[in-house]
Amino acid sequence: MKQPIIALLTDFGTADGYVGVMKGVMLDTEPHAQMVDITHEIAPQDVPAGAWILANSYRYFPKGTVFLCVVDPGVGSVRHPIAVHLGDWYFVGPDNGLFSYILAQQPIHQAVVLENPAYRLTQVSSTFHGRDIFAPAAAALACGVALTELGPTLAPEALQRLQFVEPVRAGAEIEGSVVHIDHFGNIITNIPLTMVPELDGDRSAQLTFTEHDVRVTGYRPTFAAPQAGGAAHPFIYGDSSGFVAVAIQNGNAAATLGIQRGASLKLTLSR
Amino acid sequence: MKQPIIALLTDFGTADGYVGVMKGVMLDTEPHAQMVDITHEIAPQDVPAGAWILANSYRYFPKGTVFLCVVDPGVGSVRHPIAVHLGDWYFVGPDNGLFSYILAQQPIHQAVVLENPAYRLTQVSSTFHGRDIFAPAAAALACGVALTELGPTLAPEALQRLQFVEPVRAGAEIEGSVVHIDHFGNIITNIPLTMVPELDGDRSAQLTFTEHDVRVTGYRPTFAAPQAGGAAHPFIYGDSSGFVAVAIQNGNAAATLGIQRGASLKLTLSR
Amino acid sequence: MKQPIIALLTDFGTADGYVGVMKGVMLDTEPHAQMVDITHEIAPQDVPAGAWILANSYRYFPKGTVFLCVVDPGVGSVRHPIAVHLGDWYFVGPDNGLFSYILAQQPIHQAVVLENPAYRLTQVSSTFHGRDIFAPAAAALACGVALTELGPTLAPEALQRLQFVEPVRAGAEIEGSVVHIDHFGNIITNIPLTMVPELDGDRSAQLTFTEHDVRVTGYRPTFAAPQAGGAAHPFIYGDSSGFVAVAIQNGNAAATLGIQRGASLKLTLSR
Repeated sequence: MKQPIIALLTDFGTADGYVGVMKGVMLDTEPHAQMVDITHEIAPQDVPAGAWILANSYRYFPKGTVFLCVVDPGVGSVRHPIAVHLGDWYFVGPDNGLFSYILAQQPIHQAVVLENPAYRLTQVSSTFHGRDIFAPAAAALACGVALTELGPTLAPEALQRLQFVEPVRAGAEIEGSVVHIDHFGNIITNIPLTMVPELDGDRSAQLTFTEHDVRVTGYRPTFAAPQAGGAAHPFIYGDSSGFVAVAIQNGNAAATLGIQRGASLKLTLSR
Repeated sequence: MKQPIIALLTDFGTADGYVGVMKGVMLDTEPHAQMVDITHEIAPQDVPAGAWILANSYRYFPKGTVFLCVVDPGVGSVRHPIAVHLGDWYFVGPDNGLFSYILAQQPIHQAVVLENPAYRLTQVSSTFHGRDIFAPAAAALACGVALTELGPTLAPEALQRLQFVEPVRAGAEIEGSVVHIDHFGNIITNIPLTMVPELDGDRSAQLTFTEHDVRVTGYRPTFAAPQAGGAAHPFIYGDSSGFVAVAIQNGNAAATLGIQRGASLKLTLSR
Repeated sequence: MKQPIIALLTDFGTADGYVGVMKGVMLDTEPHAQMVDITHEIAPQDVPAGAWILANSYRYFPKGTVFLCVVDPGVGSVRHPIAVHLGDWYFVGPDNGLFSYILAQQPIHQAVVLENPAYRLTQVSSTFHGRDIFAPAAAALACGVALTELGPTLAPEALQRLQFVEPVRAGAEIEGSVVHIDHFGNIITNIPLTMVPELDGDRSAQLTFTEHDVRVTGYRPTFAAPQAGGAAHPFIYGDSSGFVAVAIQNGNAAATLGIQRGASLKLTLSR
């Protein structure tokens, strides 16, 4: 028996039952779906944060997984509800930049606007397209309905993308910014580890949060490795997301250092 | 293969493992169940809040879904543990009013008291009937056990109902109250949209929170529509639950206006 | 069709997508797995708290359930990644004491170190073994791969155990401590009910939090039972976990009394 996978990412929280309702709608169409929550704790309306979490999650899901993604400040307005076949996966949600990273990383096979009323609930509200448009479309894809059945195609170049400020390297200096603070308080930057291969093992590397006058010194390979400066000192490490990051052993680096998402920073390699 | 659906709603939170334990118990009986969390964040012991969330969720689940609902301040006391067949669905939980809205909305086919020890854990604690009584009963129903196997029938009129204060309309004025504040801070009232069909498009409608001296003016069809008063002004809209509500575009209306559940209000239509 | 069960317990929170990624990895190997969240809200790095929640949950899961447990302050260091067959269940996670209670309660059939690269992701990070080592191992076990395929065996006596301070009974006095505060604010001690059979019905039993000068008097069988002292008075009860505990009817005992995990206490029976 086929058991299709639907992965969900929203800013709905889990207190109101909104996520459960979307699952109920999908199970009515595809009772065998495997439904996996990526997160529902994206800050309300924070499309860039949702885009980042999604970008760091989707690769680990099986080919064919359908991602139902709703961070949708423009619900009910002119923004298109879309489904996109990107690489080996399908993405359903608002056309507001939520899929920006993946559009840059994967081949774009096809995109459609979710206009076919056969794959919507009979009554479509103005404020809960997750339930009325996106969930039925995701369930249809999970059932094997062709993408083009869901509505007219949209030119890939017409899809909305967020404008990200990319890190810039000049010699041993890289300018970047904080792209995510995780549950543990680890500070994750937008500098990919592939941009700084020399960082690995660089005990004299420095990362300065320029607006905060905060400097972090020394790369460590793991959270657990002993450190000359003692356990409470922040250090630079290579995050599992593939980006340069800052942590404190058994501590919350962001809270301790007073750093938030968006903070500017400069990484200086010593070699 | 049949894959029955069990939807869960509790005030257990997700920190202690209580929900996981109930699922473990149910999987021991019905390993193929699809289990969907509606929410576990009902405020502790808040039966009316649980009743409201459930009432706004159940219709979206497939026919035959079993709802395991535990908000149970009277656990271990004389309140009955029950299962009720209402409309196309089954509801399992304490007889304390948690199913009030659905009892009013759906035909009541049959109700039973969960007394049959064959569908309880061997040891029944005084403080965790979710695990010991409700989960085994829900799993039994999901497996196809007949409702009447679970215990003696209970007269429908004997089932507990909460006393709700209904909104009252007199001409262009409707008196109501706040029934829910959602994750986004949207303020949802007890006034059904069907009671105020003229509201749709009424830019001069006014909603006054009477105890707070707070007045909200103007209906908007969506969160995203442009507005003369600017983005930061609260507005009236028709919530996806089917009730009149108040929001602020990209903002938290309840926090901004200082409104909590239970607040009295008056809606005045202009036509 | 076999539908194996994988139960998850971590300190990852649910905001970052870390749990979703582990599930994605597992579904790639075993698309039919039933995945159940026990909790992801263990306080960061709090191995004893994780061990306690796990110990009070695992027995309720079907035989053969695979538990994927990650509270792992030592990720990337010398601590072993392990899988252990204990009683009727399998446990996968770091060898840091997380399984201490279960090691004491169940027969230890076999333990292995997760070294076989065939059951790891191709690239293993230093900071997210949940994704790269533990999830693939759990999925393999769920698929029926033999424990010994995952790596070399480890002597049971070599497995790490936490040192717990056991309660001590001397006549009618038992010295213990607070082992858990639950979502409702109930204060759960390390004194098993089996150690104090006389407590049941003892209206004059006293429990004193010795460092806080707080005394609680009287055993009650349920949260709901009427009480001479009134609803707001704390009382002693037998928790569904099997341990002596303190609650306040419809209230939060820990917050009201100012008690935290680890607090010392003395229980005095009156007969």
